[in-house]
Amino acid sequence: MPLGERGGWERSESRYCGVETDFSDDVPSLLSFNISTGGFDYVLALLMNPSYRPSLVEGKGSETQVLPVSGSDLVLAPSQWSSHVVGKISSWIDLDSEDEVLRMDSETTLKQEIAWATHLSLQACLLPTPKGTSCANYARCVNQILQGLTTLQLWLRVPLVKSDGDASEGLTDSWELWNSFRLLCEHDSKLSVALDVMSTLPSETSLGRWMGESVRAAIISTDSFLTNARGYPCLSKRHQKLIAGFFDHAAQVVVSGKPVHNLPKASDSNTEGTQRHTLRSYLDYVAYLFQKMEPLPEQERIELGYRDFLQAPLQPLMDNLEAQTYETFERDSTKYIQYQRAVAKALVDRVPDEKASELTTVLMVVGAGRGPLVRASLQAAEETNRKLKVYAVEKNPNAVVTLHNLVKLEGWEGIVTIISCDMRFWNASEKADILVSELLGSFGDNELSPECLDGAQRFLKPDGISIPSSYTSFIQPVTATKLYNDVKAHKDLAHFETPYVVKLHSVAKLAPSQSVFTFTHPNFSTKANNQRYKKLHFNLPSDGGSALVHGFAGYFDSVLYKDVHLGIEPTTATPNMFSWFPIFFPLRKPVEVHPDSPLEVHFWRCCGSSKVWYEWSVSSPTPTPMHNTNGRSYWVGL
Amino acid sequence: MPLGERGGWERSESRYCGVETDFSDDVPSLLSFNISTGGFDYVLALLMNPSYRPSLVEGKGSETQVLPVSGSDLVLAPSQWSSHVVGKISSWIDLDSEDEVLRMDSETTLKQEIAWATHLSLQACLLPTPKGTSCANYARCVNQILQGLTTLQLWLRVPLVKSDGDASEGLTDSWELWNSFRLLCEHDSKLSVALDVMSTLPSETSLGRWMGESVRAAIISTDSFLTNARGYPCLSKRHQKLIAGFFDHAAQVVVSGKPVHNLPKASDSNTEGTQRHTLRSYLDYVAYLFQKMEPLPEQERIELGYRDFLQAPLQPLMDNLEAQTYETFERDSTKYIQYQRAVAKALVDRVPDEKASELTTVLMVVGAGRGPLVRASLQAAEETNRKLKVYAVEKNPNAVVTLHNLVKLEGWEGIVTIISCDMRFWNASEKADILVSELLGSFGDNELSPECLDGAQRFLKPDGISIPSSYTSFIQPVTATKLYNDVKAHKDLAHFETPYVVKLHSVAKLAPSQSVFTFTHPNFSTKANNQRYKKLHFNLPSDGGSALVHGFAGYFDSVLYKDVHLGIEPTTATPNMFSWFPIFFPLRKPVEVHPDSPLEVHFWRCCGSSKVWYEWSVSSPTPTPMHNTNGRSYWVGL
Repeated sequence: MPLGERGGWERSESRYCGVETDFSDDVPSLLSFNISTGGFDYVLALLMNPSYRPSLVEGKGSETQVLPVSGSDLVLAPSQWSSHVVGKISSWIDLDSEDEVLRMDSETTLKQEIAWATHLSLQACLLPTPKGTSCANYARCVNQILQGLTTLQLWLRVPLVKSDGDASEGLTDSWELWNSFRLLCEHDSKLSVALDVMSTLPSETSLGRWMGESVRAAIISTDSFLTNARGYPCLSKRHQKLIAGFFDHAAQVVVSGKPVHNLPKASDSNTEGTQRHTLRSYLDYVAYLFQKMEPLPEQERIELGYRDFLQAPLQPLMDNLEAQTYETFERDSTKYIQYQRAVAKALVDRVPDEKASELTTVLMVVGAGRGPLVRASLQAAEETNRKLKVYAVEKNPNAVVTLHNLVKLEGWEGIVTIISCDMRFWNASEKADILVSELLGSFGDNELSPECLDGAQRFLKPDGISIPSSYTSFIQPVTATKLYNDVKAHKDLAHFETPYVVKLHSVAKLAPSQSVFTFTHPNFSTKANNQRYKKLHFNLPSDGGSALVHGFAGYFDSVLYKDVHLGIEPTTATPNMFSWFPIFFPLRKPVEVHPDSPLEVHFWRCCGSSKVWYEWSVSSPTPTPMHNTNGRSYWVGL
Repeated sequence: MPLGERGGWERSESRYCGVETDFSDDVPSLLSFNISTGGFDYVLALLMNPSYRPSLVEGKGSETQVLPVSGSDLVLAPSQWSSHVVGKISSWIDLDSEDEVLRMDSETTLKQEIAWATHLSLQACLLPTPKGTSCANYARCVNQILQGLTTLQLWLRVPLVKSDGDASEGLTDSWELWNSFRLLCEHDSKLSVALDVMSTLPSETSLGRWMGESVRAAIISTDSFLTNARGYPCLSKRHQKLIAGFFDHAAQVVVSGKPVHNLPKASDSNTEGTQRHTLRSYLDYVAYLFQKMEPLPEQERIELGYRDFLQAPLQPLMDNLEAQTYETFERDSTKYIQYQRAVAKALVDRVPDEKASELTTVLMVVGAGRGPLVRASLQAAEETNRKLKVYAVEKNPNAVVTLHNLVKLEGWEGIVTIISCDMRFWNASEKADILVSELLGSFGDNELSPECLDGAQRFLKPDGISIPSSYTSFIQPVTATKLYNDVKAHKDLAHFETPYVVKLHSVAKLAPSQSVFTFTHPNFSTKANNQRYKKLHFNLPSDGGSALVHGFAGYFDSVLYKDVHLGIEPTTATPNMFSWFPIFFPLRKPVEVHPDSPLEVHFWRCCGSSKVWYEWSVSSPTPTPMHNTNGRSYWVGL
């Protein structure tokens, strides 16, 4: 029975809770006890008798041998196998042992068990933790297996530990074990991690790294639970926060171990005299944690389907937006309130109160779309009692149809003039006091706001105002396994050299963001150009351990006018605004970064006669190839 | 309101019926009248004023121009536009006119109208029929447009005519117009055809070709309706059959034209005094045709999702089947009844009645899976009162687990011996009287039945029986636009050189199937080998016109024993059997074939040391390249 059904969480994978069991050759009873009686959703169960060793049975005539599995496939319906059993691969296997017999037995058994799990159409199998610090042969064998799998997922069990001790003392950071293993398996998307959560937790920074990894399960031992005043199991505040993080990242909790809490018997009113599952109170506590999560806000629910989903950025100069796209953006009232504030301040600065009734300010909306900035500007004029003449310049003839209808409907015929033309080529009959535009992309200048406004400032008075007056892009390095794998799935270079618009979710932000490029408008300098180059250094926090950088999250912040700003840079983001998701610049090969060696990154904005593009690279600690040379994979057309 | 909701047809696209309308600049009223009052699902409506000509408005200052569209995007909700309006491109356009002004006006208007339809997120637009016999410039322009579309579909309007007249008399077969246009547009999957159904229909054969084409709509003029005894519109038997075919192939009916039936007024009890739509009786008749379609059989409903869906063939020798796959195949009781009949006949032939109590027949099931042939064989023994000893040979250790459980459960320990081994390598301790196997694929030998049985006949007595005793593959040329486009979507050579298992549906079979390769078992000849080569000639029926061959549908028929057969070749297929869908061999470039020039096709079965594969080609009327040379794209591993 799922942990909960409300607040938008009912769609999360994390609502299922498993229990790790001992070997049983009576799987129907195992399920009946743990699922029907116990209330768990699935069992993490050994598929083969743990005493089995292939080397001990061979030679007896393999033709008459039967695999020592926990039960025939027919003891459960196919759907029961796949929804209620996660296979646990024999823990004794050691594919990197010096003992050759053990090593060969381990490989044979691993392959037989995976074949059996595939036969049963299980959804996942748990691979035991590598025994030593070396895991190359284990990874080689798993990688062979991964090539043949279609639906089965493999979860590598790894303890969640990171001690501050010396590296010479052996494994101090289990993330490094996972990182080696998955790099050896080439980031296969069917290989995930299952973390053994212990009673002691590493630092916050260290834990944060896992939120960008493919964590499918958090196995919590009963030993890790504390005891509350009434004798029931509970978790420390830090554990609770960690589990909430896992719930939010679609990882499932698995309860493991023997019960270590002696519960008061009389208080159990639910038992109805029948046998109560000994781990029920642990499950109840996990369900309690799940249910006390904050419901997802409305906008967040609408955007659930966009989480970690790669979208190609718009090409609004080359392509025209569709009516539905306009409609979505027009609903972002926060954004237009900011614009209205900016226009109001500019109007007041431009026309003193005493001249409000005589002076008419000429305001041009360049890229008027279906009119939201025209409306915001007219409201600003009304609010400040200033007289306004508006030109609405729009290149999309389809949006111009709506603009004409809007003007007619609102009775703005005397105030608003519609110009069906690309702002870069319009010959204006008069000059503007204020130029208002909304041409910003997720990375600020990536939808060619600089080029458009350079073209439009011809018809701005020398002392005129541009709203926005400036904008700046930002980046930060991230671990983003899912995004990396989705890019990789295209199997070509072009997708690795394309920035994507993404609602980032299963992403670990590894260092604070830093500014990249800034543009200011108007810019009448004759030397101005829109090419840019920026070198950045990022340092990982010293208490978190190493991490893998799959690429860079990008944002923007814009000054509309004076103190009125608008942006999505996480630390200064405008609240309740949904017009922009961040941008993601992938790396062709992920780069492993240590806290003591900074990441050196380069970003270029390049301009050609018909297109603008970015190039990027990492030069330290390991150089990557240059990305998107000459805009070969991604560019924005002028 | 959809035409009907029952019998499995409720999932078909064809349940929506449209109506062609005149131009109106009041789209909400147009919808209200035709949809709310009229009962149609959507309108086929002009998007722009038909009097518009770009050359007449230019020069007046294009910056202040507004497109003469039928209404602002805001007059309908986005979902209304996309679900209730199919755009009709201005019929006056003629992109291949000698008049340059008309030609340029046509191109401008076509592009503006498509841009407007995209702006509104319409699902489809109807392109007018090409004016003359040449359509190259029209196709060039449409092809440019297609490159930029993502969701909008284009329907090319084509009259459904094929006269038997001389080609010199102009257009005699409208299929050729469509074929030229879509070849010029490189088979773009967003380009479909909408057929104007006339009162006179071409031959059955000619109509049949369209079932393999991408027909999205059948536009029926009111002129094509007959009048029944009560004065209501109805269609001829041949028209009814054609419309049923369109319903079955997800094409939608659109009613067009002025009402030509004067209905008796008093008999209309539904009108409730309000205005009744003048085309309502035509819609009612179309709905009646839809509702009188036979409900889909249960198995057909289960398989709806497989229609025209390409599946890679199994590799049962290299890969092991999963439990769910075994389960599906085991449910095909027709197949096992045929096997039981064959075994029974063989047992009776082998052991005369008088020796039934003393002789024990040794029967080996090679590839026993989870045991269905073991069961069928034992039932045949029981039915014929013959004594049987069974060996069940199976290479998949996971299926062997089930076999052991089956034997225990059924108490067959004294009769059935399980051998966990590949039949090609087993050293049998005795020889068999009967060898039973089910190793056939959709194309007979394509799952390597010949190679497996060659290996297994070592332990068959010299006079022993193999069930099956022979099998033959068959092919026939087909038009299969959807399959071709799905193969093409992979954008590589390998997919064009792979045969696929497919439940063929939107396919036109162009000539009767012919046999390709035959294998007979046992075959103790020392000269025997499993390579094969066959040259085939197919002639299209002379009354149907030309057609495009996208590839070949493949089938098999197998003689299990004497008169007991099993197969999927359409003319002799075993009824109610669902284990095999046909196979489809694609062609890299479709070949146009005329009734008077036969199609010459070559098929090879090639054998290497570790794999078997097919190569195929067409040599006439146009040579194609050889497909799958050396098995570079597709092979079955030994």
